[in-house]
Amino acid sequence: MISSTQVVTLARRPRGPLRAGDLAITDQALPPLRPGDVLVRNTWLSVDPSIRIRLAETTPDGYLPPFALGEPLAGLALGVVVDSRSPEFAVGQHVSHLCGFREHAVVRADGATLGGYGGLSVVDTLDHPPQWFLGPLGSSGLTAYAGVHAVLDVKHTDTVWVSAAAGAVGGLVAQLSRLRGATVVGSAGSPAKVEYLRERLGLDAAFDHRRSPLTDRLAETVPAGITAYFDSVGGDHLEAALDAMNPGGRVAVCGAIAAYDAETPPPGPRNLFQLVSKSITVQGYRAGSYNDLLPAMQREIGEHLAQGRMHYEETVFDGLESAPAALAAMLEGLTTGKTLVRLDENRS
Amino acid sequence: MISSTQVVTLARRPRGPLRAGDLAITDQALPPLRPGDVLVRNTWLSVDPSIRIRLAETTPDGYLPPFALGEPLAGLALGVVVDSRSPEFAVGQHVSHLCGFREHAVVRADGATLGGYGGLSVVDTLDHPPQWFLGPLGSSGLTAYAGVHAVLDVKHTDTVWVSAAAGAVGGLVAQLSRLRGATVVGSAGSPAKVEYLRERLGLDAAFDHRRSPLTDRLAETVPAGITAYFDSVGGDHLEAALDAMNPGGRVAVCGAIAAYDAETPPPGPRNLFQLVSKSITVQGYRAGSYNDLLPAMQREIGEHLAQGRMHYEETVFDGLESAPAALAAMLEGLTTGKTLVRLDENRS
Repeated sequence: MISSTQVVTLARRPRGPLRAGDLAITDQALPPLRPGDVLVRNTWLSVDPSIRIRLAETTPDGYLPPFALGEPLAGLALGVVVDSRSPEFAVGQHVSHLCGFREHAVVRADGATLGGYGGLSVVDTLDHPPQWFLGPLGSSGLTAYAGVHAVLDVKHTDTVWVSAAAGAVGGLVAQLSRLRGATVVGSAGSPAKVEYLRERLGLDAAFDHRRSPLTDRLAETVPAGITAYFDSVGGDHLEAALDAMNPGGRVAVCGAIAAYDAETPPPGPRNLFQLVSKSITVQGYRAGSYNDLLPAMQREIGEHLAQGRMHYEETVFDGLESAPAALAAMLEGLTTGKTLVRLDENRS
Repeated sequence: MISSTQVVTLARRPRGPLRAGDLAITDQALPPLRPGDVLVRNTWLSVDPSIRIRLAETTPDGYLPPFALGEPLAGLALGVVVDSRSPEFAVGQHVSHLCGFREHAVVRADGATLGGYGGLSVVDTLDHPPQWFLGPLGSSGLTAYAGVHAVLDVKHTDTVWVSAAAGAVGGLVAQLSRLRGATVVGSAGSPAKVEYLRERLGLDAAFDHRRSPLTDRLAETVPAGITAYFDSVGGDHLEAALDAMNPGGRVAVCGAIAAYDAETPPPGPRNLFQLVSKSITVQGYRAGSYNDLLPAMQREIGEHLAQGRMHYEETVFDGLESAPAALAAMLEGLTTGKTLVRLDENRS
């Protein structure tokens, strides 16, 4: 029986951008299993922008609490059951859960979810690579699918701007919108990523968001403006989207990366009156509100991927010791597609 | 045949709050009627916060253009047809139109609307006071009715915060929400108005928005938070609403009074991430998008008023020369309910 495990903890609260040294790898004792507990050996860890929110001193109202100093981080993960005190889970089963950022985890069979998503559950990977169930067939996929189908309800007549389009969620949103027949313009943070958006993801147009002002970039790229905006950035991106929006436009908000590094959140857009003057609707949402779409999402995106209609990219880091660098690199915009940490059974 | 008329013009662009002296009363020649023109003697002028938007150097994208210096202001008005070159309008008919802020107006029978609302049309006042068709049975009523019924879809389980609740639109929103069984809290800018909200409009709670921070006022007034917010103010009001909002909350935005006096619009709320963390939807709208609700609105609000279930207040200024002071007073928050200018036939 394993008595301890390696975990990623918060060593000090980041000031501004996260540095890998703000996190530490330490050995922690594993508690003995109580009834309802399941011991999982993690195989894949999801590295998501939203982790950054919980590294701050306080978190926004309605969100999960901050991580305490010395506390292991948590995040979506895949693993294999190695011991179980729950009748619902058997040794050898592949599961997904929320106790990432560690090699082994004791998980409650009926434990917490993340905004309604991510409780311990068995994963049937079918013929797909298992890590897809953290990416295009998992939380990234559900966030993207809900945004395109339920929140924005993208139509072939739409011109959609997707921010962070080279990221895990943005790349799926952009391609799902394209597959619905919309004109899609993506933005990302380097010339290489802009080329990736045009060449690999097949978007109609793309631009580098670091060449501000964004309003000018959008005016050049889509002179007739946009009818929908997918926002995971906030700040100047949301402001530019309102400027470029046509009357009756819609905005789906799934995150606000621009604010995550700030000690005090930056002020919002100055042009919110355009919500009135252009009759714009802005809808914030979390994937967990759309769990009912999960089967349809996995079927639809699974088929798109299997038949080569969608491109999916991942940036993989190996070993738990790479997790701090993985998170820092992803937040800095140095990774493309889904960022993952792979844990090899033979190494732990 | 009348050859000239008194009009209210923009004498100089206001810096900060409007002063009556920023406007002037001048005599302007009336053009001869061309085919399709109708000459109207105005009887009632609507004094609305949104007029302030067009007094600035530039207006937000999607909105009407600024008034030019020396140009007559425009706004919703009621009047009587005194000459007509249109087969659709006959002398003596009561009409509503957009050429307010003057005594006589030459109006195109097929002329412009304001965001889809307010083109020249015959008004059948039935047994109601005619000026109600600028207030609770006119644009104020349609804005309020669309906000409560279509945008927020207020339910009896809701706790609704209504900003500017002693104003023309806010007072109707608050009472329509109350009549739908919701718990309603209103805010306004003086102790007398707060008492008015509690005593005359029968709201469940009310507070003075000048006693900031608003987040504390809301926490005192509705400790369990709100589920919907009706926004005609923006700025600190919208920020406080997001702080007080329950998950799944809705915001209807019909204006942003807080920004109208600013040379540069103030920054938006810092807490927009709560759109995500609490799955909040913010919908901007204009009454003109809901013209199909006009008959139902007039029937429903008309009955509420006739049977004493709703209270309607108006602040009336007499004579065109009072229009600049009326607009300045309304924007300063010194009026209650609908602000109107009455033009007496015998004075002009």
